[in-house]
Amino acid sequence: MEPVTYVLFGATGDLAKRKIYPALYNLFVDGKLPDSFSLIGLGRRDWSDEYFQTSVEQSLRNFSRRELVNPELVQSFISKFRYSVLDIGRTEDYKKLLGIIEERESTLGLTPNRLFYLSVGPEYFTTIASNIAESGLGSTAGWKRLVIEKPFGHDLQSARELNEQLSKSFTEDEIFRIDHYLGKPMVQNLEVLESANPIIQALWSNRYIANVQITASETVGVEERAGYYDHVGAVRDMFQNHMLQMLMMLAIHLPHNSNAQEVRKHKKQVMEALIPLSKSDVRANVIRAQYAEGSLGGNPVKGYRAEPGIAAASMNDTYIAAKIQIDDFFWRGVPFYIRTGKRMKEKSTRIVVEFKEALNQASSVINGGAPNLLHIEISPNEGIMLQLNTKENGELKPVQIQLHESSKEIPEAYENLIYDALVGNPTFFAHWDEVELAWAWVQPILDAFQDNQVPLHSYEAGSNGPAEADALLAEDGFHWWFDTKDESKEKQQTKRKDEEYAY
Amino acid sequence: MEPVTYVLFGATGDLAKRKIYPALYNLFVDGKLPDSFSLIGLGRRDWSDEYFQTSVEQSLRNFSRRELVNPELVQSFISKFRYSVLDIGRTEDYKKLLGIIEERESTLGLTPNRLFYLSVGPEYFTTIASNIAESGLGSTAGWKRLVIEKPFGHDLQSARELNEQLSKSFTEDEIFRIDHYLGKPMVQNLEVLESANPIIQALWSNRYIANVQITASETVGVEERAGYYDHVGAVRDMFQNHMLQMLMMLAIHLPHNSNAQEVRKHKKQVMEALIPLSKSDVRANVIRAQYAEGSLGGNPVKGYRAEPGIAAASMNDTYIAAKIQIDDFFWRGVPFYIRTGKRMKEKSTRIVVEFKEALNQASSVINGGAPNLLHIEISPNEGIMLQLNTKENGELKPVQIQLHESSKEIPEAYENLIYDALVGNPTFFAHWDEVELAWAWVQPILDAFQDNQVPLHSYEAGSNGPAEADALLAEDGFHWWFDTKDESKEKQQTKRKDEEYAY
Repeated sequence: MEPVTYVLFGATGDLAKRKIYPALYNLFVDGKLPDSFSLIGLGRRDWSDEYFQTSVEQSLRNFSRRELVNPELVQSFISKFRYSVLDIGRTEDYKKLLGIIEERESTLGLTPNRLFYLSVGPEYFTTIASNIAESGLGSTAGWKRLVIEKPFGHDLQSARELNEQLSKSFTEDEIFRIDHYLGKPMVQNLEVLESANPIIQALWSNRYIANVQITASETVGVEERAGYYDHVGAVRDMFQNHMLQMLMMLAIHLPHNSNAQEVRKHKKQVMEALIPLSKSDVRANVIRAQYAEGSLGGNPVKGYRAEPGIAAASMNDTYIAAKIQIDDFFWRGVPFYIRTGKRMKEKSTRIVVEFKEALNQASSVINGGAPNLLHIEISPNEGIMLQLNTKENGELKPVQIQLHESSKEIPEAYENLIYDALVGNPTFFAHWDEVELAWAWVQPILDAFQDNQVPLHSYEAGSNGPAEADALLAEDGFHWWFDTKDESKEKQQTKRKDEEYAY
Repeated sequence: MEPVTYVLFGATGDLAKRKIYPALYNLFVDGKLPDSFSLIGLGRRDWSDEYFQTSVEQSLRNFSRRELVNPELVQSFISKFRYSVLDIGRTEDYKKLLGIIEERESTLGLTPNRLFYLSVGPEYFTTIASNIAESGLGSTAGWKRLVIEKPFGHDLQSARELNEQLSKSFTEDEIFRIDHYLGKPMVQNLEVLESANPIIQALWSNRYIANVQITASETVGVEERAGYYDHVGAVRDMFQNHMLQMLMMLAIHLPHNSNAQEVRKHKKQVMEALIPLSKSDVRANVIRAQYAEGSLGGNPVKGYRAEPGIAAASMNDTYIAAKIQIDDFFWRGVPFYIRTGKRMKEKSTRIVVEFKEALNQASSVINGGAPNLLHIEISPNEGIMLQLNTKENGELKPVQIQLHESSKEIPEAYENLIYDALVGNPTFFAHWDEVELAWAWVQPILDAFQDNQVPLHSYEAGSNGPAEADALLAEDGFHWWFDTKDESKEKQQTKRKDEEYAY
C-alpha cells in the first residue's frame, strides 16, 4: 500500500469517534493500513497531540469491534496521530496545515499522497475544498483524494451546485462520496450473489422474479437531529441515497470480474432505466407518512410532531414507500417496492426477492406452499435465506434454508470504505452520475410533497408503517414479506388436507 | 379410512419387529390407521394371541420412534392383533386362515378388505400368492392388496417369472412393491422440490446442471447376511432398486398436482430414456470393487473375503459406481454418477446436484469460489443445502445455506409406505414397468461381471471407495463432492488475493 497522509476534518466529532478511528484501528490490526501512514486530525478545539491521541484511544475502547488486548499495538497505532487546530473559514489555517503536513511528510519520508476526509457538516464542503486548492494543499506531487460524507446536496439543484464547486478543486476520480450502506458486507455481496452464482444469474430477471422489496426500518425517532431532520425527511435522508443505492446494487447485471468502472457504468444504466415519475405520478406510486403516538418494546412513544424540536404542524415525511419500475431488458414489469421509516416495529434492513409461480400459477401456494423467496438480511444481522417448498406428511410446507454468518468477524462498513479510499478503489462510492440521477428521480417526489399534492398518512409508532403502504402492494396482488416474523408458521395452518394424494 | 384386515406373513421375523409394528403403532397414534383395523400375524411358530401381543408390545418398546407413555393407548393398539400358525406350503393352513379372517370380519363387522403383507424371503412369494388365490382368501367382496418386500427377482429373467406368477393372483394395481428408499421423506421430497418450486424448476435441466451425484455409502459389512450377500452383490442389493429409484425421483419432470399414475408414467419415461449399456460398454462406465482390509472409527476391519461365510476367492461386488446418461430433452449431456458400497468411510445417502458455471466458464471458481451445489441429505440426516458464492474481504468464498429438520418428528419410511398401502396410494411403490426396466438396464452389468469382463478393483475398508471411481468423474473434469466434509474450508485456502479489485 502506498504511503498516505490522512487529513481528517472534524477529528473531534462524533462520526470520527464512533466510526472512523475504530475502523482505522481494525484495518491496522488486519495489516490493511499502509506502513507509512500519518493522520492529522483537525478541529476547532485547541487540543494537543497527546490529548488527541488519548481521545482516539478512548474511542477505540468504546467503539472498536475488537477488544484492545495489546497495549503496544494500540500505542503504535495512535503514535501515527497528530492534531492541528483549524478554523474552516480561515485561509491562513490551511497554509499552516500545509506546513505541518509537509514537515511530517519530510520527517517520515512519505510520498506526498493526501487523503482529505470531510467528517463535517455539508455547509463546509465547498469552503474546505476550495481552501485545499487555494492553499496549495492539493498541489501535491503525489495523489490527492477527497472523501465526503452525506448529504450530497438537499435537492437536485443544490447537489449540482455542490458538485460544480467541488469540481474546481478535485476531479471526479479524486472524489469519494461515502454512502455507508455501500460499505455493508451484504450490500457489497449483492452483485457478487448474481455475478458469481450461475444459478442466481439464471433467475435474475423478470422471467422468474415477481417483485423486489427493499426495506430499511428504524426503531429510533429523530433523537438529537430534530432541527435538521425536520427539514430533510425520509426521502432525502434515506431514500435518495441508501435506498436507491441498494436498488442499483441489486439490479445490476455485470460481467464477471467487472472492475469499478463497469460497476459504476451499470449502476448508472439502472438509474437511467428507472421510469421517471412526474409530479402528478407521485400520488399513485409513493406513500408518505409520519409517525403518530404509539409504543415500542412496551414503552409509550411520542408522535413525531410532539418530539422536541419538531414543528407542531410539520408535514415532514418520517416514512416513505415507493413503487419503482426499471424499464430495461431484465426488469421490465418487475415492481421494486422500497420503503424506509423511523419509529417502526423493528430495526431491519433487508431485501426480499419474491419469485414468480411457474406457469401453473398459484397451485403450490394453494396447496399449502408459499412463493419461493430469496431474503437478504443486511442489518442488524447478515444472512441469506432461501424459502423453498417441501412436503411433510403429504402436504406442502415452505421451509427456509438459512445462512448466518457470525457478525463479529465481519468488518464494519467504514472499514471497507476507508480501506477502499486508501487504495483508491472507487467501486463502493457513489459516482456523481448516480447521485445526480438519484436526485433527478426523487425531485418530483420532493416537489409533490412540498406542494402537498400527496396525502401525508400517519402510522402508529412501533408499527410496520401506514396501511396505505400495504395497499400499494395489494393492488398488484403482493404483500410485504416478513413484517410478521413467523409467516411460514402462519402459512402452515392454511394448508389443505391432501385427500386425493396429489401434491 | 376403509376397514382393513392386515394379513402379515412373517409376523415373528426381524423386519416385522423392527419396522412394521413400530410403523403401525406410530400411524395409530397419529390417527392414521382405520378405526376398523385387524391384524392377523402369521408364522411357523406356535404362538398364542397373548404371546404375540406381548411380543409386539416389546418390539414397540425397543424400536418405536415415540416413547410408549400411555399404556391404554398401547393396549388398545395391540388388542387389534391376532396370531395364527401357518406353514407357507400347506394349502389347508390358508383355508384355516380364511376361516379365521372371515370370523374376525364378521365379529367386527368389517368390510372384507384384505392387505396381504409378505415380510418373508423371496423364495416364498409365489407360493403365498398362489395359495391366497386358490384358498379363496383373495376372493373377497372388498379389495385385496399384496405388499411385498425386495428383492423382486435376481435378474431380469427371474424378475419376469416372478411377476408372471404373481400376476395370476393379483393385478398390477393390487401389487405394492416396497422399495423403502421411496418411503424416505427426502426421497419423497425430490419431485416436490422440482415441481413445487419455480426457481428449482427453472434450473432443473442440462442448461444449468453439470452433473448429478447419487451416493449411498454404508459403514457396515455383510454382517449376518454373508451367505445371501455373496450371491447378490451391490448391483442387485442396492443399485437395481434403491439407486435407480432415487435417480428416477430426481430426474422426473412433473406437472404440478400430478397423481400416482403420472408419477409412475414419468418415472418409466426416465428409465426408458437411460442410454443402455451393452456388455462391452460396462467396462468404461461401471466400476466394481470389493473392500479390502482397513479400519473404521479407529478399529481394524477385515477384508470382504476374510469375512465369515464369504468365499475366499469371491468375485462379488461390495461397491459399484456407474456413469449413467439420460437421453431426453432435459438431461441429455448431464452425467449421473451413482455409487454405493459397504464398509465405506461414512454412512450417508445423499444427492449432489452440481450446477454449471455461466458462460464465462470457471472464473468464479478460479477466483476462490466454487460451483453452485444443491446437496440433498437423505439419511441418516435429512437436509437441503445450497452452496453459493459470496464475497468476504474482497474475495469470493463459497458458503452453504442449510436447512436441517429435526429428525424425531419425521415419520419413518415404513410409516409412509404402510399408510399409503392402507389407503391404496401407489405413488411411492415400484411399478412393474420400472422394476423390469431397471433389471433390463443392469442385466448387461451383471453379465459383464459374471464373465469377468470388468476388473474387480479393491478399496480399503473405511475409505471413500476405489481410486478408479474417482477417475470415472475426473475423466469428465468432475469429482465426488463431500467425501471430505470440510471442502468449503479447504477451498478457502486456495482463494486468490484480490489485488486489482476485481471480483
